[in-house]
Amino acid sequence: MEQSGHFPGEQPAYVAVDWGTSSFRLWLVGENGGILGERRSGEGMTTAAKIGFAEVLQSHLDALSAPDGLRVIVCGMAGARQGWVEAGYIDTPTSLSVILTGAVSVPGQSRDVRILPGLAQRTKETPDVMRGEETQLLGSIAADAKGEQIVCMPGTHSKWVRVVDGHVTGFSTFMTGELFDVITKHSILSAAVAGAADMPADSATFESAIKAAFAKPALATNLLFTARAGQLLHGLTSAGAQALISGTLIGAEIAGGLSAIDKGATITLVASGRLQALYEDAFRTLSLTYTTVDADAAVRRGLSAAAQAIWPNNERKS
Amino acid sequence: MEQSGHFPGEQPAYVAVDWGTSSFRLWLVGENGGILGERRSGEGMTTAAKIGFAEVLQSHLDALSAPDGLRVIVCGMAGARQGWVEAGYIDTPTSLSVILTGAVSVPGQSRDVRILPGLAQRTKETPDVMRGEETQLLGSIAADAKGEQIVCMPGTHSKWVRVVDGHVTGFSTFMTGELFDVITKHSILSAAVAGAADMPADSATFESAIKAAFAKPALATNLLFTARAGQLLHGLTSAGAQALISGTLIGAEIAGGLSAIDKGATITLVASGRLQALYEDAFRTLSLTYTTVDADAAVRRGLSAAAQAIWPNNERKS
Repeated sequence: MEQSGHFPGEQPAYVAVDWGTSSFRLWLVGENGGILGERRSGEGMTTAAKIGFAEVLQSHLDALSAPDGLRVIVCGMAGARQGWVEAGYIDTPTSLSVILTGAVSVPGQSRDVRILPGLAQRTKETPDVMRGEETQLLGSIAADAKGEQIVCMPGTHSKWVRVVDGHVTGFSTFMTGELFDVITKHSILSAAVAGAADMPADSATFESAIKAAFAKPALATNLLFTARAGQLLHGLTSAGAQALISGTLIGAEIAGGLSAIDKGATITLVASGRLQALYEDAFRTLSLTYTTVDADAAVRRGLSAAAQAIWPNNERKS
Repeated sequence: MEQSGHFPGEQPAYVAVDWGTSSFRLWLVGENGGILGERRSGEGMTTAAKIGFAEVLQSHLDALSAPDGLRVIVCGMAGARQGWVEAGYIDTPTSLSVILTGAVSVPGQSRDVRILPGLAQRTKETPDVMRGEETQLLGSIAADAKGEQIVCMPGTHSKWVRVVDGHVTGFSTFMTGELFDVITKHSILSAAVAGAADMPADSATFESAIKAAFAKPALATNLLFTARAGQLLHGLTSAGAQALISGTLIGAEIAGGLSAIDKGATITLVASGRLQALYEDAFRTLSLTYTTVDADAAVRRGLSAAAQAIWPNNERKS
């Protein structure tokens, strides 16, 4: 639903916003936790930095007839240095609940707007950062979970997070989605995938690429080239080439994501839509056990937890 | 030398041309094997397909005052399907000398122009092709060499070739150079390298990236992202980010190139200029033993061997 009015009887309690680099998603949340309205647009940080963050936010609140003064909780790139107000980072290792204490207020607004901080891993060899995924993570795992969990959050920059007894001990970003994008748009392989649909449709090729890259990630950039050689020598289709590139990048990512963990760790996949289908296929192909959490629901739950911690009087009644 | 006249006393015997996708190199070779003239330009296959291959060739021959009717031997993408005349492929495994028998004549020319075929590896799982490197290879290894040799030919699409007792048993292409190009131009990391010089200048970062990616190639796309996180958290310079990206891609390539060979194999690096310096640094950093063959000299030797096999009356007198 692009726009929706209020449910009869439930009053809006706060607004939750997931403000990424290139996407904006807003939910009007009711006093009982119901979703009273939703907005999605391409006015991510990059666009909002030109138009104005306050203006973008207000236009979506107006479209939902949100009351003046309604509180807003935000996660994502709006808190980056080049965003609305810099929200800094919480350093790992950390308990996830610490991010709730790091929210910054946006000054000069007629309403209370808070932006959640990101996570930073400041080790010398493997520095890493996330903004937005920490909130998704907060909504994906139980605070009282015991043992080691690996959380995979696929995307433009996929995040693999290690959580032990509810603490984030470290994480790794893999540039999978962005590499797929630049390789299929700007490299010689753009010719190999020309005309393919958005979603890899050649499951057999996807699955064999997953297996090959997972088994030998050192050969990943060689496997990519077989998309071209396969077209020249074996008549590989554009759908096949696309599946091969996608499977190679995801297979290598999974090998990397799992390289530093205990064999017995539980894998949680936080994804939705196209990426959920691809990663579930990949995990099944590799006989890995996993559970899936819907990414949209996870970020809403994380924002809701933050809202409840910051404004306890808005606590759900249910 | 962009242009040069004839050496006094030595008559031109044939013309050797290395015609790549985006580069054209031509040598006027004397009857005693001396280089009597040289031309380099950006009129590779892509440009020549628009201007006309015969026209491009003639303009360079005119600039060197090459005699009418002088024979021309060509290797590279001019023999591709989208090139001048398709020269096909010799299938691996093969003796290298077989490529000499696969040259095709360009019809309708006033002079004898031959284009050498490429190599194709038609295996189902790892199809691969090369055009031009087979001639460089011919000029790099001794036909009577015994034992296993690994030949590394770095470039836009780096080739790693396994040669056993003078036979090419197989090869692998790694998209290292092209990935470096698209990642530093089109991904989020373009901001991280903005302003860096052409040649990675931060040797310490290059070498630590080589070691890290060689040790854990599954983490390659994670190491790439540390170029961004390192700038945000540790003040990594643009030269450092560039060295990190270059070292990561080359380190992973070397891990892949060496993954399927005997430990005792000899490594031959066929490179010149910037790539020679980078790969020599990488091999030294990994304590790998190697010998270097100059890439320009290798392709000239390969073309010369082809000319002598095709036109034995032009055999060098020395």
